[in-house]
Amino acid sequence: MDVSIIAIGDELLIGQVVDTNSGMIAQMINPYGWRVRSVRVVADDGDEIRRAIDAAMSETDVVLTTGGLGPTKDDITKPTLCDYFGGTLVYDKSVEANVLEVVAKRGLKINPLTAAQAYVPSSCRVIQNRVGTAPLMWFERQGKVLVSMPGVPFETEEMFRTEVFPQLRERFDVSFAVEHRTFIVIDHSESVLAGKLADFESSLPAEVHLAYLPKPGMIRLRLTGTGDDHDRVVALLDEQGRKLHDLVGESIVCDEDKMPGEILGDMLRSRGLTVSTAESCTGGNVAHEITAVAGSSDYYLGSVVSYANGVKTGVLGVDADTLARVGAVSEEVVRGMVDGACRLLGTDCAIATSGIAGPSGGSAEKPVGTVWIATRVGDAVEAKVYHFAGNRSRVINHATTIALIQLIKMINLHYSYSSYGKG
Amino acid sequence: MDVSIIAIGDELLIGQVVDTNSGMIAQMINPYGWRVRSVRVVADDGDEIRRAIDAAMSETDVVLTTGGLGPTKDDITKPTLCDYFGGTLVYDKSVEANVLEVVAKRGLKINPLTAAQAYVPSSCRVIQNRVGTAPLMWFERQGKVLVSMPGVPFETEEMFRTEVFPQLRERFDVSFAVEHRTFIVIDHSESVLAGKLADFESSLPAEVHLAYLPKPGMIRLRLTGTGDDHDRVVALLDEQGRKLHDLVGESIVCDEDKMPGEILGDMLRSRGLTVSTAESCTGGNVAHEITAVAGSSDYYLGSVVSYANGVKTGVLGVDADTLARVGAVSEEVVRGMVDGACRLLGTDCAIATSGIAGPSGGSAEKPVGTVWIATRVGDAVEAKVYHFAGNRSRVINHATTIALIQLIKMINLHYSYSSYGKG
Repeated sequence: MDVSIIAIGDELLIGQVVDTNSGMIAQMINPYGWRVRSVRVVADDGDEIRRAIDAAMSETDVVLTTGGLGPTKDDITKPTLCDYFGGTLVYDKSVEANVLEVVAKRGLKINPLTAAQAYVPSSCRVIQNRVGTAPLMWFERQGKVLVSMPGVPFETEEMFRTEVFPQLRERFDVSFAVEHRTFIVIDHSESVLAGKLADFESSLPAEVHLAYLPKPGMIRLRLTGTGDDHDRVVALLDEQGRKLHDLVGESIVCDEDKMPGEILGDMLRSRGLTVSTAESCTGGNVAHEITAVAGSSDYYLGSVVSYANGVKTGVLGVDADTLARVGAVSEEVVRGMVDGACRLLGTDCAIATSGIAGPSGGSAEKPVGTVWIATRVGDAVEAKVYHFAGNRSRVINHATTIALIQLIKMINLHYSYSSYGKG
Repeated sequence: MDVSIIAIGDELLIGQVVDTNSGMIAQMINPYGWRVRSVRVVADDGDEIRRAIDAAMSETDVVLTTGGLGPTKDDITKPTLCDYFGGTLVYDKSVEANVLEVVAKRGLKINPLTAAQAYVPSSCRVIQNRVGTAPLMWFERQGKVLVSMPGVPFETEEMFRTEVFPQLRERFDVSFAVEHRTFIVIDHSESVLAGKLADFESSLPAEVHLAYLPKPGMIRLRLTGTGDDHDRVVALLDEQGRKLHDLVGESIVCDEDKMPGEILGDMLRSRGLTVSTAESCTGGNVAHEITAVAGSSDYYLGSVVSYANGVKTGVLGVDADTLARVGAVSEEVVRGMVDGACRLLGTDCAIATSGIAGPSGGSAEKPVGTVWIATRVGDAVEAKVYHFAGNRSRVINHATTIALIQLIKMINLHYSYSSYGKG
């Protein structure tokens, strides 16, 4: 079943707010074989909303609108829908009762603007909004359904999940299975990987589709299977997943769609290892990515960000003479930092970074983007130099991802481990 | 000048990636009086792309597409555009040379798939992509322009800012002045500030508009002036800016649209002060925000992320008995951490955080979201407890911003300083 989404609101078109509702809806309906066919973002403007509804209604049987329902003047979605589907705006006592309840829960009093939410088109069926004041409205025409939902992400998510989608599934009973498998591949550029997988891809059964989703330092490979028989779709994906492992298994670090910080966290926890970081150019961002993962205190102990050379020598114990001789952005210093982190913070593993994030500080020999990364697992240390392109923020982010991946690869090598298809 | 955007990619419609490019483009063109009229998100599907182009070209004179240009099979935007605008795909030596240069900079070798990027429709004018391998393509038809851009946000941003938008402004010469002045206000809720500024706002000249852009811990007030005469617009904004300073000047920490990390950096540099951080729940994110600013090595020396209690006592010198008695999330510990950071890292100022980011670890007395923040300037220390709502990532980000603002406010008090309109 295909769905069109219309996201309504001036704030979405001036870049003040990013439309995250459409992605949320897509993620929620995909496992049921439903698909977002298109998303239209339009202003709080009656004509533009009407045009978008026309196009969407001609495209799919289900149209979802989000936003444009606030109590202030500029929100004209409700009168526009009333005009489009016919009827008049009528005062609905059940909506009034619901608005009073929601407002009371928030410890607020009702005001004339909020009370106006109780006016709804006579042509719609109301779905009460349990978590906000704007009622949801269900319209039908010639077998097609349009549901108008609020735009506040928390309200959209709650009401779509608990009311709108269940009611839509009941209305359009479609039994069609869609499943995804995502594999995180390292050590390959997109085109090199595509070369290796050319035969695999062209011999895929018609029900299975392969997509490349590259990120800095890694490629997410996604197999999507579709069909009427859910068990068969799962079996097909399992089979193709095994073939993928036979082809590039040594470069697959995770069989789920996870961030490097999560992948590293899983590896450390399952092996009972601890980690710390010693960061110069990444300025704490590697620590931030590690601690962004819930439960990271199980394996992450701490970090030293040693921006100043005095901190590299005084706190991390990097040899001052070496530093003066070869400079902070060097193999020797980054090795000293990774050793210092393990010693000072008492961890099994560590990551150290030292580089030139720019925009200034570069030289002919060590241009902006030059980053040394050292990783340590037990007594083994690996140090590599990278050259990242782009502005300061991109160099920092890229170096952070690659630093995490370098440690992931090292642990992968030291503790060879693969469970795919062997369970 | 109105612009339509078409964001292309299956990944956008299954909710795996959120389209942030459209917001970036809107933010970049708005100050010049240009406006995004609509955004369409469509799949990697020739028919759907064609339909979206038809609708967009009938709507606005400028159409921008992002994405769908990767070197793999599923990206069919280029052949679709060639089919739409006519001509054939031809091998372009200048694109080949550019791809070779970009690939070489990344330390990689070219392969057949990357080389295929050099095929471009004969009906387009190429804009070389300095930061990626997919060339940008400029098409014209009946006075309307469509520019196809890559979808990787870093590439889109860099190429739109430096090439596409300047060329579009030259092509559609619109002489209409739009100027903005942004003021960062602290210590106010949006409604309290709106109350203080009610008279000011209602007495603004017709050419000047005031907008409230709230962020955690601060409100960005933006004055926008429009008109045919650029000098007059600037004079009007200067005059209204001075009035704003007379009304709430003591709460304005910056007269430019800057991030807290930049505001703090400017304050530290102009006063010759240095800073360090000691972080627990923010996990290095405060250091990351400080070091995200170019030139931060002038005033930032380093950090200790003390996730484990052993690091708080062993490295930062927090009293172990106190920690055992009152717990890590406490005024005593966060004061010990901020003192330890100044002592160990030898800085004038410091920020320390200790809290419960969640989702687990909370208690009735200290629920998830409880964060103690201490800031130190010279010998003065201030410690406050905050309660942040939301998930782990939101608690970390909110605590990071508030920690920076707490130090900004403290320096502002200790070194009173305002230069607005006095230069």
